[in-house]
Amino acid sequence: MKRTADRTASHILRIACPDRTGIIHEVTGALARRGCNIVQNDEFVDRERDAFFMRTEFTGGRDAQGLARELRRRLPVGASIELVRPRRKRIVILASREPHCLGDLLLRHASGELEADVVAVLSNHRELGVLARRFGVRFIAVPSEGIDRAAHERALEAQLSRLRPEFLVLAKYMRILSPELVSRYAGRIINIHHSFLPAFVGAQPYRQAAERGVKIIGATAHFVTEELDQGPIISQGVVPVDHSHGVRDMAQAGRDVEKIVLARALKLVFEDRIFVSGNRTVIFD
Amino acid sequence: MKRTADRTASHILRIACPDRTGIIHEVTGALARRGCNIVQNDEFVDRERDAFFMRTEFTGGRDAQGLARELRRRLPVGASIELVRPRRKRIVILASREPHCLGDLLLRHASGELEADVVAVLSNHRELGVLARRFGVRFIAVPSEGIDRAAHERALEAQLSRLRPEFLVLAKYMRILSPELVSRYAGRIINIHHSFLPAFVGAQPYRQAAERGVKIIGATAHFVTEELDQGPIISQGVVPVDHSHGVRDMAQAGRDVEKIVLARALKLVFEDRIFVSGNRTVIFD
Amino acid sequence: MKRTADRTASHILRIACPDRTGIIHEVTGALARRGCNIVQNDEFVDRERDAFFMRTEFTGGRDAQGLARELRRRLPVGASIELVRPRRKRIVILASREPHCLGDLLLRHASGELEADVVAVLSNHRELGVLARRFGVRFIAVPSEGIDRAAHERALEAQLSRLRPEFLVLAKYMRILSPELVSRYAGRIINIHHSFLPAFVGAQPYRQAAERGVKIIGATAHFVTEELDQGPIISQGVVPVDHSHGVRDMAQAGRDVEKIVLARALKLVFEDRIFVSGNRTVIFD
Amino acid sequence: MKRTADRTASHILRIACPDRTGIIHEVTGALARRGCNIVQNDEFVDRERDAFFMRTEFTGGRDAQGLARELRRRLPVGASIELVRPRRKRIVILASREPHCLGDLLLRHASGELEADVVAVLSNHRELGVLARRFGVRFIAVPSEGIDRAAHERALEAQLSRLRPEFLVLAKYMRILSPELVSRYAGRIINIHHSFLPAFVGAQPYRQAAERGVKIIGATAHFVTEELDQGPIISQGVVPVDHSHGVRDMAQAGRDVEKIVLARALKLVFEDRIFVSGNRTVIFD
Repeated sequence: MKRTADRTASHILRIACPDRTGIIHEVTGALARRGCNIVQNDEFVDRERDAFFMRTEFTGGRDAQGLARELRRRLPVGASIELVRPRRKRIVILASREPHCLGDLLLRHASGELEADVVAVLSNHRELGVLARRFGVRFIAVPSEGIDRAAHERALEAQLSRLRPEFLVLAKYMRILSPELVSRYAGRIINIHHSFLPAFVGAQPYRQAAERGVKIIGATAHFVTEELDQGPIISQGVVPVDHSHGVRDMAQAGRDVEKIVLARALKLVFEDRIFVSGNRTVIFD
Repeated sequence: MKRTADRTASHILRIACPDRTGIIHEVTGALARRGCNIVQNDEFVDRERDAFFMRTEFTGGRDAQGLARELRRRLPVGASIELVRPRRKRIVILASREPHCLGDLLLRHASGELEADVVAVLSNHRELGVLARRFGVRFIAVPSEGIDRAAHERALEAQLSRLRPEFLVLAKYMRILSPELVSRYAGRIINIHHSFLPAFVGAQPYRQAAERGVKIIGATAHFVTEELDQGPIISQGVVPVDHSHGVRDMAQAGRDVEKIVLARALKLVFEDRIFVSGNRTVIFD
Repeated sequence: MKRTADRTASHILRIACPDRTGIIHEVTGALARRGCNIVQNDEFVDRERDAFFMRTEFTGGRDAQGLARELRRRLPVGASIELVRPRRKRIVILASREPHCLGDLLLRHASGELEADVVAVLSNHRELGVLARRFGVRFIAVPSEGIDRAAHERALEAQLSRLRPEFLVLAKYMRILSPELVSRYAGRIINIHHSFLPAFVGAQPYRQAAERGVKIIGATAHFVTEELDQGPIISQGVVPVDHSHGVRDMAQAGRDVEKIVLARALKLVFEDRIFVSGNRTVIFD
Repeated sequence: MKRTADRTASHILRIACPDRTGIIHEVTGALARRGCNIVQNDEFVDRERDAFFMRTEFTGGRDAQGLARELRRRLPVGASIELVRPRRKRIVILASREPHCLGDLLLRHASGELEADVVAVLSNHRELGVLARRFGVRFIAVPSEGIDRAAHERALEAQLSRLRPEFLVLAKYMRILSPELVSRYAGRIINIHHSFLPAFVGAQPYRQAAERGVKIIGATAHFVTEELDQGPIISQGVVPVDHSHGVRDMAQAGRDVEKIVLARALKLVFEDRIFVSGNRTVIFD
């Protein structure tokens, strides 16, 4: 949620590697020698894993390729070094029938708040086509009726390989993606789902939540991994409810928190602020 | 945020009167004699003012007019007795240039979440016309340039008297309404504005907030009264920020909380859940 | 959290019964005939179960016994009718080794914030004796070492039957109570435990939470039933965390929210504001 | 609220200076040459003021004095360079009559949660002596009755100069400190006070808040400066309220949030995580 407004950085340097003494000094030295001016810098050491993470926004400087080469030579073997320019990401939004998350993203897209270009909205249903078209965004229905799971996913992948998105945003997309598709977009699929204290498994979670009388309803945005809803958490939020909330009222409260949490998570993703370490995120916001 | 989903009530009875013993008994008696079945009932006594408030949703029953007549006879002099049917309100949204609140309302409107019909969007600028038209909602620009304050408001009122809205929603409308207009729509104009701890007066509040290093940014939805931003509060919300938020980041955080708080307030208004007692609200949610 | 301050009620009437038309009218009639003045009144209909709940605080009036008798005659068979005087409850606090919840309760007790008398603190360990004695509260160690589960619980029950508390407050008591003890104090044992999104089962939940990188840590206060941690929820709260929180930091954040949530839940219990309907609570706060 | 648990750092280096290119590189170089291993590192550039802030926790290394000398030579003129060892701070708590903040701090102190030694509690009243003594903490009454403002403050200062605290914690101390005393402890006095949206000036703020019907009550912890309640904000929190909260209920809600917010602020102060930049804080948590 931060600092985008006055963003002046020409580059973002992202490093993840085994921890050892002196990394920050070496990295900042390589930057200084090229006249780069650091405008924001964050580091974190995950001591459990002895893993080091660093994200540096800088301006000016010359010879970005030389910088990357030098760092690859100096940093520990196995270091991940990314040097990116801040720029709008290409995304595809997948949705099913619920309009609240899709609509919120399209609004932000239209008003310039979303640092991404929505190249298309894909859906297994047709209803949301009206909404996408209101905003002049391409809508592609990939119906699942009458065909089997594998055939549907092939149709989906055919569209995706043509659209070439960098990120897939699941804005209440109610089908499970195959492990193959998930691994093709590893770390690049973001999902939003409701969350409860305690968690409810099985169908009709809002009904279960209402019957259990929960006092808080939440939402979790996370990266999608092969294990359903178990990927690294990006953002979470909650909203209070009480006994007078029926099933649909809880669902309404859930929708409001879902759309805010998803938008917040996407902002972090699109600004290259997230590292994944094991099954958790390290977020420099 | 509540109970709309399973709403089955055919009528809502709203009573505000001086407190005395036995009111609930008399009201529920009048309902019982007509075979009305109460599905939700709330009361509150404001002891400072010795004021009694009651809101009753009921189904079935006959002779609604007789009910109102009987209650007027039985209840203390000066009692306000309203018997309404739950129904969508006619509203006009006034906005200036910022799209976040207007867009959120139009989305909710389109998806059936807003219990109101937006008969038009009025603006002193033209920019938001695109957004309104995306949703097929009538947009009327009432430009203020080149004319004086009184002339502008006459133009505004001309539109309003033709549109006959029940409520005016100020979705970041940045002009001050005249006391005459406010009193014509007394208790029926809802505004949203940012709020800070502490409050900042004067221009550029987000700049002041950033310079003061506030850790929380809020929004307040309230009824508009003649005293600017001092009307009865309907709903408030906050979002955490920190030193890394620049002025525009704070403004972005503020927009997110504003749109949620405004939507929550409107839901309470449109479901006839609010009474005003002095300069504060009594809300049966 | 409410209204205790200006409490003037001499009685609280609590009714739970099958729903049918006219109950409020009959109850308020019985009150009016006895000259009782209602100072606060709340009702709720659980439509799923067709269950009616009503809580009425009133002052003055005569013939409380006659009131209860009349209501028993008039209300549906199976109605639960309680007529209580607002008064401080007798409680025993059970704790193990962690001082944060116990200490917070003792502080509130000492400053008059807790509407209860703490007749004793019972513990399966000795460490918290110092803390209880600081506040002049009786501390009874009931050690579990060297004896089996049944013997320990017999020792516990021996103490309880002598102390005769109305409520047992489990302030981080880390042993499981037997179904017999739970059923003896049905609806009168309150527990606090940490909560996560998602939930973690098994040992070391904070370690699991840290490894999963949760962004929110919560606490749930609930009535204890035979099914562990599955009783009706009274109150919940959350606090944000991030990747920089290690296991112990998360535990610290958890402690802060636990003590606030437990205190809030007890206030609701001690003011007779809670009904249990199935496995959920109806709370008139 | 973070990372104290696994704190292994032997030193904390804190730098505040005008921004220019290369500072991080120079500082980390000086550390690397002495074999220091950075365990946590944070920087922030306040672009409005062109000010650079850096906080580094490191372990091992030799020649701390040489490190400070080298940095003073290399960094821009006017740089503030502090090299501290993590250690418990000496604090004096000032309180008046309300026990909630003092009690919470004493509990945390007793359980080892507070990274500070409370050398004494000073009060202008005698009531809180009981509470301090429960925890074996020295209590010194410095009554203000019968003497003028200047005489009272001389008495207070006499105590303080004997006790030599590093920080003064105002835990609901209801008297205003003189500018002289404030400047003697510049940046070392922390206060907690209630906060409202909107702010209320004058007497009886909770009465005003109740009459205005606010929906949120907050608390702000801040450094004390000469301008009353206008010093740099450290931490803020809020709690929701509604129309059913009377004046005292609001005050109770306010107390709960005050004690949590004060404890959170003190943790940040005692871990040397805060810089003051102009009238705002930069906090590395």
